[in-house]
Amino acid sequence: MKYGICGGLLTIGLLACQTAQAPSAEVETHKEALLAADRAFDRATAAGGVEGWVSYFAEKGAMFPADGPVIRGHEAIREAMAPLDDPGFSLSWEPLGAEVSSAGDLGYTYGRSRREIEDAEGNRAVALGKYVTIWKKQADGSWKVVVDIGNEGPPEE
Amino acid sequence: MKYGICGGLLTIGLLACQTAQAPSAEVETHKEALLAADRAFDRATAAGGVEGWVSYFAEKGAMFPADGPVIRGHEAIREAMAPLDDPGFSLSWEPLGAEVSSAGDLGYTYGRSRREIEDAEGNRAVALGKYVTIWKKQADGSWKVVVDIGNEGPPEE
Repeated sequence: MKYGICGGLLTIGLLACQTAQAPSAEVETHKEALLAADRAFDRATAAGGVEGWVSYFAEKGAMFPADGPVIRGHEAIREAMAPLDDPGFSLSWEPLGAEVSSAGDLGYTYGRSRREIEDAEGNRAVALGKYVTIWKKQADGSWKVVVDIGNEGPPEE
Repeated sequence: MKYGICGGLLTIGLLACQTAQAPSAEVETHKEALLAADRAFDRATAAGGVEGWVSYFAEKGAMFPADGPVIRGHEAIREAMAPLDDPGFSLSWEPLGAEVSSAGDLGYTYGRSRREIEDAEGNRAVALGKYVTIWKKQADGSWKVVVDIGNEGPPEE
């Protein structure tokens, strides 16, 4: 409907409406950018711990952790994810796919996650999981996380 | 960038580009439509069991179940969710919020879920959870589920 009006006004044959309809090459570019953002999110967390993690969330972004209530906003997320700064704990992930809205303003990634915990005796426990992360393009053009949710079990289909 | 070009071509003052920028009233309308779709999804599942559930998924839509691999496509989802037709099992949910892309083509809902299982002796077990569902507007204008994921524990923030 929206682009129908636009098309009617632009029958003079300009490219503007083709652009507004988000041709697949543009959607593909948005998708690659989002996958890159998710990989950078993983690297920032590995390098910066909880501050790296928090830096990828939108101001009112929310985590939906397994077995706990929704955690919303930088301050609450920083508190809940403090274990990311423990040397015996690590969280890493790898996106397997993404999809982005036609205007490139909302999208999601999904993939596999890995938590590793080492206890005081040096025993390691590894938990594999899967996740879905929803991203929103910010005013400055960066992608930030608005919702992050995961659960147990690897995603292999 | 995209709407920048469009705006440049339409400085003759037409409304088209204002429309293409998706004013907040339109976004609000999309959001209400998506919340309504999620409530209708719940009712369809209560009334129609597994067929009601499957009918809300896009053809390649996927479930990310707790403790199991990703389940993709109608046939696999129908098989995995067969317990929805058992009289002793019920799954219901209620959305608490939604967000939709500016063009109204991709969005998500989130909320609380409730599973109820009754065993042969009539004992009931209730499990509360939370979920995030990602929806994509289809060619026919309907919203369908592309990703559904949940985990244990109520969402209360």
